[in-house]
Amino acid sequence: MNYFEESLKLHEKSKGKIEVISKIKVETREDLSLAYTPGVAEPCRKIHQNEDDVYKYTSKGNIVAVVTDGTAVLGLGDIGPKAALPVMEGKSILFKEFADVDAFPICIDSKNVDDIVKTVKLIAPGLGGINLEDIGAPRCFEIEERLKKELDIPVFHDDQHGTAIVVLAGLINALKIVNKKIEDIKIIINGAGAAGTAIANLLTAAGAKNIIACDRSGALYAGMSSANEAKSELARVTNPNGEKGSLADVMNNADVFIGVSSADVVKAEMVKSMAKDAIILAMANPTPEIMPDIAISAGARVVGTGRSDFPNQINNVLVFPGVFRGALNVRAKEINLDMKIAAAYAIANYIDDDELNENNIIPSALDKGVASAVAQAIEAAARKSGVARL
Amino acid sequence: MNYFEESLKLHEKSKGKIEVISKIKVETREDLSLAYTPGVAEPCRKIHQNEDDVYKYTSKGNIVAVVTDGTAVLGLGDIGPKAALPVMEGKSILFKEFADVDAFPICIDSKNVDDIVKTVKLIAPGLGGINLEDIGAPRCFEIEERLKKELDIPVFHDDQHGTAIVVLAGLINALKIVNKKIEDIKIIINGAGAAGTAIANLLTAAGAKNIIACDRSGALYAGMSSANEAKSELARVTNPNGEKGSLADVMNNADVFIGVSSADVVKAEMVKSMAKDAIILAMANPTPEIMPDIAISAGARVVGTGRSDFPNQINNVLVFPGVFRGALNVRAKEINLDMKIAAAYAIANYIDDDELNENNIIPSALDKGVASAVAQAIEAAARKSGVARL
Repeated sequence: MNYFEESLKLHEKSKGKIEVISKIKVETREDLSLAYTPGVAEPCRKIHQNEDDVYKYTSKGNIVAVVTDGTAVLGLGDIGPKAALPVMEGKSILFKEFADVDAFPICIDSKNVDDIVKTVKLIAPGLGGINLEDIGAPRCFEIEERLKKELDIPVFHDDQHGTAIVVLAGLINALKIVNKKIEDIKIIINGAGAAGTAIANLLTAAGAKNIIACDRSGALYAGMSSANEAKSELARVTNPNGEKGSLADVMNNADVFIGVSSADVVKAEMVKSMAKDAIILAMANPTPEIMPDIAISAGARVVGTGRSDFPNQINNVLVFPGVFRGALNVRAKEINLDMKIAAAYAIANYIDDDELNENNIIPSALDKGVASAVAQAIEAAARKSGVARL
Repeated sequence: MNYFEESLKLHEKSKGKIEVISKIKVETREDLSLAYTPGVAEPCRKIHQNEDDVYKYTSKGNIVAVVTDGTAVLGLGDIGPKAALPVMEGKSILFKEFADVDAFPICIDSKNVDDIVKTVKLIAPGLGGINLEDIGAPRCFEIEERLKKELDIPVFHDDQHGTAIVVLAGLINALKIVNKKIEDIKIIINGAGAAGTAIANLLTAAGAKNIIACDRSGALYAGMSSANEAKSELARVTNPNGEKGSLADVMNNADVFIGVSSADVVKAEMVKSMAKDAIILAMANPTPEIMPDIAISAGARVVGTGRSDFPNQINNVLVFPGVFRGALNVRAKEINLDMKIAAAYAIANYIDDDELNENNIIPSALDKGVASAVAQAIEAAARKSGVARL
């Protein structure tokens, strides 16, 4: 099947993927008088008296805006807000299908951080949460940080945290198979943008002590001269032994390779140089950093990719629907580190130990039960960390 | 029935009124690969190559944002963006129910004109049209004018133009009954805010030559000292004979009274002073400027109100769904004066001459056939005036 051609046909036939419908019927004069004037004045008055009643009488509490500036869309890069819309609509329908979250695309016609932050803040009254999507690094870091600080609804950059959570979930299970502990292993992350940075931070929070992040020029290390502040910061919090050199150099003796980079950058020899029972999560799309069969032949024990046609698809559709479902359910003020770690464990534990094996470290992206497991974990962690308002 | 109490219950039970659903199914791996990655990259690429393809492959062409700042909500006034949300959701579901337009509320947390204009502009890439709603005068005039100039999608402030169109429709039919021509009559408009101003402008464009607009201090006349530029401009283009005095003074010998003001400001004596076969459209909500029975007793021939429990309900639900349906159908760049007049005639002509009478000058607000009649008129007028792109 030619996915590109078929997808184009599907999009043209359906004229996009989302529609906005009514939850109540409007057929009689009475219906109209309750849904609209004069009756609607009463919920308005109640909310005016008590702002929190907006959650009681409107859809706000179940609505997430999928916000992008179109600067880092899939592997396509900076294609602009209009061209990003098919992805944002896709994300929106996945929210609905997997977790009954009502999501709406907001494509912002500016690359300016202040503009984006201000726009999202100004439209927040009607929104229950903000899913940032496909915004390029390092701007995405500042945008998310500022919005988190200035809004009282959850803000979550999925390319960062969704990816980091699903990677941690896969890693937790892969480590069970090879019987290693996250504290003891050497982890290489190739790609030091939004996803790579978030993965490094989340794995660190989950106990990893020796992560080396690489960009095109090789390993990041403290004190290196770097193009941006985000990379310098990443270098400071990783690579405790100050290893320098190319990706191939630092992969030597590593236990885990995590790729959020580009096709074919990992060679068989590099896998051969890794420690015994190596774990490879090669998530470049559509072509992974190394093809699974080559990695296995070179000695890797567990291999995951971003693709659905190989085992172990590391797909953040396992993450974002349940994360927001849970956050909205308890009206969480934010999605914090504890909640992200809880989500990763919920995904990992969704696979029973007796079903766990080299080709089954992560649930199927189509398993709609995952979202509710994640939601429950998020709710519990939100309550425990004091950010739940319900 | 207590509409307020019942409406509150309905809103609480349904947790608001809108939901965002998928137009396509997402059940198999294949579905996921077409709706989302990897297939979705292809419509993105196409739109990146040719911006106009955004209408071909996304929902943009059928989406209208219902935008407010919450400053002039119903009769409640400046209750803020959150408290305005029930009205915006109500409007959104009417768009869907009456004209299959997908509408989404955008409640903006600022009263600053520059902020509002900029926010709407920045989120426009995903939108097919902008319905401005419940934004106070005179700010609404500048916001609409600037957005119309700076965007290539239709922008329509419903409180102005929706009201003006439905008033013109009612007036066209009422004048048939009393056998008078719009050119020859004296029209009093009480209320010189958003609605009153738009009514004056549209009736003028439709041929009216003697309109007097009043605010709380009485008739507006050229050269008067006024609180704002919008009112001065309205004074300049109305009241050709420079009549001064109170509402009661200028209603003497008037053929038509149009009220967009407040309860009970018109007394029986004032109606008695009007010309023979007077027409009264008293649209203050929930209590009209004069109750229909009192107006009829005082000699009025045709009386309309905003209420569904009296004959001749002047309700802009007859207008906005069809206006946007038509504008979206032909991808109109704007909604211009010709289109507005065409919409008014479509609504008026929806009532056959042999069904026309004092108690039936306007179609029922529940008649879902009106929207398609309006849409057709809008399409034809858009084409004729050169603003249709399809």
